[in-house]
Amino acid sequence: MERLTVETPAREALVDIGACVADALRAKAWRDGILLLFCPHTSAALTVNEATDPDVARDIAHGLRLIVPRDADFHHAEGNSDAHIKSSLVGPDLALIVEEGRVRLGRWQGLYFVEGDGPRKREVWMKFIPAS
Amino acid sequence: MERLTVETPAREALVDIGACVADALRAKAWRDGILLLFCPHTSAALTVNEATDPDVARDIAHGLRLIVPRDADFHHAEGNSDAHIKSSLVGPDLALIVEEGRVRLGRWQGLYFVEGDGPRKREVWMKFIPAS
Amino acid sequence: MERLTVETPAREALVDIGACVADALRAKAWRDGILLLFCPHTSAALTVNEATDPDVARDIAHGLRLIVPRDADFHHAEGNSDAHIKSSLVGPDLALIVEEGRVRLGRWQGLYFVEGDGPRKREVWMKFIPAS
Repeated sequence: MERLTVETPAREALVDIGACVADALRAKAWRDGILLLFCPHTSAALTVNEATDPDVARDIAHGLRLIVPRDADFHHAEGNSDAHIKSSLVGPDLALIVEEGRVRLGRWQGLYFVEGDGPRKREVWMKFIPAS
Repeated sequence: MERLTVETPAREALVDIGACVADALRAKAWRDGILLLFCPHTSAALTVNEATDPDVARDIAHGLRLIVPRDADFHHAEGNSDAHIKSSLVGPDLALIVEEGRVRLGRWQGLYFVEGDGPRKREVWMKFIPAS
Repeated sequence: MERLTVETPAREALVDIGACVADALRAKAWRDGILLLFCPHTSAALTVNEATDPDVARDIAHGLRLIVPRDADFHHAEGNSDAHIKSSLVGPDLALIVEEGRVRLGRWQGLYFVEGDGPRKREVWMKFIPAS
């Protein structure tokens, strides 16, 4: 597997990782198959969403904050249970279609690392399975 | 990859795509492996849930509406930030087991396109990776 | 595909299935590729989260209960619509990287079956796709 590193800027943020993933595809000459992205952290996640208007990424981080209570009779002593919950809601794995050496995304889509307890230096793991 | 088209009937709805997916499997003679379904839209998603009682699909759309605020100091000018958030919560990708030419699902399960900002004409992308 | 069985202890609970999955990998001699875990139940799901402090699993079950209303003008007669909604939020499928015969997880991560309507005897399905 390959590893990307991501620097996250705040406690909660969506960081666009599309360019890093595209670079890795080129470097490895992965042409046609399924690319699995995996987040090895328990207070973060991976998602796909609009990458044109940056307000969408901001609104997703804001919306997650409204949906998941920050404090709510949680027992975990580190005080970041909200981030663990977001991690499981958004999910750690992302399976993507690769053709002609590119991740195939919809017109408005981009790839995001979803930080829930930053700022931190994070990793994204990548594994490629060729179509044939 | 293959493309399915889905017509969604309302702003928020779950549309059963199981029959379309089964038809595509037969047409392509995909027998044994993993089928990746991908939603190329940023205000919709894909899921698996009960397909026997149609009230379940209705309750999921209703529940998502209660969980994700419709208006909440969002910045995105199109006014559909709730749909973008639902898209990331439910998720754009669905990896399914295929054996003997059929998607293997539990007894009560069906495949759903989750519309968050319809009615629209949508697509689902499909990529198959054989088991060996 | 292979099947694991999971006994869930309560209506809502996260059950660590990491040891069962590791045993299956060894028994099948699956070395390098992608392992797809699939939950064939519509009121449960699969996730990855912290497996060191058991309070995290407890807080996730607790948080999901706060986020998803238990009763909210649902129509489904069985009264477990909250569990169906959690199933779609957390998700039924989990794609994992396998190398050297082990699921590659982050330092704090474990694999969880997320029960939403137990206690019950449940299954997890596994399908392996080799990397080459």
